[in-house]
Amino acid sequence: MANDKLIVHHLSRSQSERIVWLCEELELPYELQRYQRRADNRLAPPEYKALHPMGSAPVIHDGALVLGESGAIVEYLLATYGAGRLTVKPGEPGFGDYLYWLHFANGSLQPALMQIRALERVDPSEQNTVLQAAKQRFDRILSLLEQRLAKVPYLGGAELTAADIMAVCSLTTMRLFQAYDLSPWPDILAYLQRIGARPAYRRALQMADPDLTPVLGAQP
Amino acid sequence: MANDKLIVHHLSRSQSERIVWLCEELELPYELQRYQRRADNRLAPPEYKALHPMGSAPVIHDGALVLGESGAIVEYLLATYGAGRLTVKPGEPGFGDYLYWLHFANGSLQPALMQIRALERVDPSEQNTVLQAAKQRFDRILSLLEQRLAKVPYLGGAELTAADIMAVCSLTTMRLFQAYDLSPWPDILAYLQRIGARPAYRRALQMADPDLTPVLGAQP
Repeated sequence: MANDKLIVHHLSRSQSERIVWLCEELELPYELQRYQRRADNRLAPPEYKALHPMGSAPVIHDGALVLGESGAIVEYLLATYGAGRLTVKPGEPGFGDYLYWLHFANGSLQPALMQIRALERVDPSEQNTVLQAAKQRFDRILSLLEQRLAKVPYLGGAELTAADIMAVCSLTTMRLFQAYDLSPWPDILAYLQRIGARPAYRRALQMADPDLTPVLGAQP
Repeated sequence: MANDKLIVHHLSRSQSERIVWLCEELELPYELQRYQRRADNRLAPPEYKALHPMGSAPVIHDGALVLGESGAIVEYLLATYGAGRLTVKPGEPGFGDYLYWLHFANGSLQPALMQIRALERVDPSEQNTVLQAAKQRFDRILSLLEQRLAKVPYLGGAELTAADIMAVCSLTTMRLFQAYDLSPWPDILAYLQRIGARPAYRRALQMADPDLTPVLGAQP
């Protein structure tokens, strides 16, 4: 039975954190439904998998619409309810940069991280040359982020945009699954402190994963 | 020295094929610069890596702007020169579906393929349970594509959109690096035949990778 409410289905410790944060930044009316990972394998429970044929987080309902894919949900919510907030518009200075960093999160950062995680499960040793190459690529990705954040406070420029909403969880929550050291990157760490001080981010985390707030690097 | 021209830097047999195809569908004026992969390791040559700090394809120049990331370039070109073509607009029926499939390519399809390729390089055997799980996930992804293409001729609905531009190369050119069988998926194959019959796609391939045209599944 469809209703008119926006419902955000949040799987604990997952990329759906992005959507909760976006809704808080936009101050949208929405209903948050939380799902815990299975204790045996840390995967999504059957009731989460039943929400969408892909079976992965995030998923939203908006009236009759059921939508997956972080990038799609972020663009949908911004276009439908954003009223121009958290974006750089076509023709404005920095439009290209904004789009680059918006797509960088799922186009480069998150896939590189997932690849390292998979390769380490097969063979975490130094002899795994495919893993070593993946780590080098990930270092290049972090170095590019560091260079950007040495110049501007947020990925899209002077203000928080959807580019930050997409990128941050790979730098915080995902480190619970795949520990990696951010200490060589002071500008990334300073950025995470700025994010962690935002009231909307803090509200989102407290509602989405209240047990996480003490452990995330983004929390001051 | 900046100039005002749109330049598409195409690395042979790479995702920058998407951008050439998009420019041909939009009939944009642009200059195509082609780069061959290194013979020793099939990676991008130094002159391609020098174009952008990420060192990966695609890259465009548009006047002073240097832009990477397929998703960013596609959205930039559509917003700047598309005049509403190849998209579904906010509020139109199917807007959510369009966004889903637009982001599906780099959010799910292409990363799953890259992960399988990396895992096979470490251990291609049946004993590699991480690889087997990745293959099962990839099958779910293809199954979802098949279900979609049984209902509509193009991923965004009745007409070609940027969602197709993003998805197709993972189903064609990427199979040169990572062979996989599409014969269990007749609706995907019929879709690739439809794409392969499009004059703009044929022009793009003939200009971008003329040696590929006889081998791609998308070619009728």
